[in-house]
Amino acid sequence: MKNLNENTITQAVIDRNKNTPNPRLKTIMTSLVQHLHEFAREVELTEEEWEMGINFLTSTGQTCTDTRQEFILLSDTLGLSTLVIAQNHRKPDGCTEATVFGPFYVTTRPELELGANMSEGVKGIPWFVKGVVRSITGEVIAGAKVEAWQSDEDGFYDVQKPDLGRCEGRAVFTTNEQGEYHFQTIVPAAYPIPHDGPVGKMLQVLNRHPWRPAHLHFMITAEGYERLVTHVFQEGGEYLESDAVFGVRSSLISQWVRHEAGIDPYGRMQNTPFYTLEFDFILNRSNETK
Amino acid sequence: MKNLNENTITQAVIDRNKNTPNPRLKTIMTSLVQHLHEFAREVELTEEEWEMGINFLTSTGQTCTDTRQEFILLSDTLGLSTLVIAQNHRKPDGCTEATVFGPFYVTTRPELELGANMSEGVKGIPWFVKGVVRSITGEVIAGAKVEAWQSDEDGFYDVQKPDLGRCEGRAVFTTNEQGEYHFQTIVPAAYPIPHDGPVGKMLQVLNRHPWRPAHLHFMITAEGYERLVTHVFQEGGEYLESDAVFGVRSSLISQWVRHEAGIDPYGRMQNTPFYTLEFDFILNRSNETK
Repeated sequence: MKNLNENTITQAVIDRNKNTPNPRLKTIMTSLVQHLHEFAREVELTEEEWEMGINFLTSTGQTCTDTRQEFILLSDTLGLSTLVIAQNHRKPDGCTEATVFGPFYVTTRPELELGANMSEGVKGIPWFVKGVVRSITGEVIAGAKVEAWQSDEDGFYDVQKPDLGRCEGRAVFTTNEQGEYHFQTIVPAAYPIPHDGPVGKMLQVLNRHPWRPAHLHFMITAEGYERLVTHVFQEGGEYLESDAVFGVRSSLISQWVRHEAGIDPYGRMQNTPFYTLEFDFILNRSNETK
Repeated sequence: MKNLNENTITQAVIDRNKNTPNPRLKTIMTSLVQHLHEFAREVELTEEEWEMGINFLTSTGQTCTDTRQEFILLSDTLGLSTLVIAQNHRKPDGCTEATVFGPFYVTTRPELELGANMSEGVKGIPWFVKGVVRSITGEVIAGAKVEAWQSDEDGFYDVQKPDLGRCEGRAVFTTNEQGEYHFQTIVPAAYPIPHDGPVGKMLQVLNRHPWRPAHLHFMITAEGYERLVTHVFQEGGEYLESDAVFGVRSSLISQWVRHEAGIDPYGRMQNTPFYTLEFDFILNRSNETK
């Protein structure tokens, strides 16, 4: 214990943790210490660099508030979130892929009837979204909860607007007997992740942009099925190849079809051009019923 | 880029960072991403565990203030500080070993004459400390700055006492023509690192105590020599085998000799028992003059 050097310290720390009562925690700490130390040895981290790291982590923590989570942004931009999601949602081919949750989901959202407009009157190009929720073997899933949330046409979520006091661009719908969901909203925009903090500075020195391609978030839950958290992206959209948080999957890119002014899917007259999207979700059965 | 999974994500992030202008930063980020991801894959980190990690890092950052650095405590208790210090201070055999800096050093400390009492009247057992600063080839080093700092007999540093408004138990001395330093102070106590925050909670779930063995901090600087930051520990002291921050080195343990009441090294009468310490420091020549 007392003759520690840059190599023996690693086993000394692991030994010190040997009485950890929770075996899972012990496993995690052993691997964490090994990789943290191996990183420092591999790059021969200097004391000045260590101090920069301490300061970076400190300011990342201090940037976090009730409405901002800078460490999630850090995890997202370092690809850790995508890795953790992927390894926790291995699914049979054919299931809809999961992607990052993002920091803008909130549990207080209206429960709306199919066909309702969740944009709450916020300015934007009208968008008509529909699809079917199915199992991997093709059965339609009635009564599935389909939660959707999105940015406005300037790239902002309702929760980012101070003192808004209501939801905009988020709602939960329930699939009908045919497993169908459908609603109206507006077309969301590409937007930069919050980049006025430490993570923004990190992206800058890495010569990376903070933008995410336009997308519509979905979370779909149904009894007997694994919860699906995902996005739908726009074919041909900007930043699909360089999403700042590594959220894009080919299978989640779909056609957002533009229509000239005219009759919309609900039979109403639209005096301006509008878009439609059709996207089906294939859920994986949950462990209990597999 | 668009077909990311738990394995391909790592190279995707490294590729995304490929335009980093600073080559050293690029090297560090590549290694960091590889080890961070490898850790998550190795333990098959769950989403719940990831969230616990995010929350732990967030509260660690939020615990930091102008006078408290919780991320340094985390680095210390995970052995990272010892590793970084060791690999940045490889020295010829015979040089005094370096150890952790700790969070209690401050640059505002009095410059005292040799023989002065740096305890500033704080209660404790009198302690008379002396030694010689030498080069590895045995030359004495005159004019070396010997900074010392320590806890009081209750285990607290002056900077931990709110509104103290002065230094206690810290000073800088200058070696004389014979390379000697000597001063009076009080015997410091073992103490626990601050453990009312996230790092304290971590130590608790790891079934580890937060204590450090009693020690006297030194920082020694002299032109032409590498700065030495180290401690001197007490032979037979408590916690030498389990220092919470992995700071103990065998070569830094010395005899703190107890004396009955009587004449002290400065020829003054002490009416209570007192201690003496003799510890020489051997400095490494700095790169420029090696």
